[in-house]
Amino acid sequence: MDFKLVPIGEVCSPFKSCSDVPRQAEDWLPPVKIKIYEEYLRGLHRLKTGQVLYILSWLHLADRKMLEVHPRGDRSVPLHGVFATRSPHRPNPIGLHVVTLKELKEDGIIVHPLEAIDKTPILDIKPYKLHWPRGDEKRA
Amino acid sequence: MDFKLVPIGEVCSPFKSCSDVPRQAEDWLPPVKIKIYEEYLRGLHRLKTGQVLYILSWLHLADRKMLEVHPRGDRSVPLHGVFATRSPHRPNPIGLHVVTLKELKEDGIIVHPLEAIDKTPILDIKPYKLHWPRGDEKRA
Repeated sequence: MDFKLVPIGEVCSPFKSCSDVPRQAEDWLPPVKIKIYEEYLRGLHRLKTGQVLYILSWLHLADRKMLEVHPRGDRSVPLHGVFATRSPHRPNPIGLHVVTLKELKEDGIIVHPLEAIDKTPILDIKPYKLHWPRGDEKRA
Repeated sequence: MDFKLVPIGEVCSPFKSCSDVPRQAEDWLPPVKIKIYEEYLRGLHRLKTGQVLYILSWLHLADRKMLEVHPRGDRSVPLHGVFATRSPHRPNPIGLHVVTLKELKEDGIIVHPLEAIDKTPILDIKPYKLHWPRGDEKRA
């Protein structure tokens, strides 16, 4: 089976290193551009400004060997399995972001808010679907 | 850059082929087991029954060359770019599912609802975070 990803684009962000970028998407973040490579631009057809999207990114600086972490790097919080956290460090470091599409450009899209460093590879874009919690569900 | 995924587990489902499985997660679906491979089980530490989770799967039967599709296979709907749809056919066929964790097992988890065929590779598990739409957002 072929488990090889192809980047469809990359983030153009003012944040150049991990220490610059906030851990969570926050409203004060500037909109950022996702440059989509020419061969994938046709895949953007019929996206609309204002739409809410999932962006899947490849967290290329992650440590893929980690299976337990202190959430948010806080050592006073006991170790959690990485699948019980949103840590970038995990076997497949795929970042999942919910953004609003602010503008369609000839060579990509402008989205907000996206907490990702410059040149982060982008893997996929999907329309967001709101999930209404059922009665028996707990949030993390 | 290393763009190679590692499957962390696989779906054990009564649905054995694409034509068996519904296109959307639906409430009547039976709970299914995700078997997690032994070397990744530690990553489940502190997950809790009732939690809402994202499951990322690898849609191994997808056509990765498609960039436009008729949504839901309905030819009366005009072509859309794949990034404006939830079609499994896309350059990186990563499936995104929102499920409730029903039970923790020694070798995996039982979740509901998951629309995936038997032996679908699993890439990642993340806690779900509810996204409250802002005033200027449209849903797809």
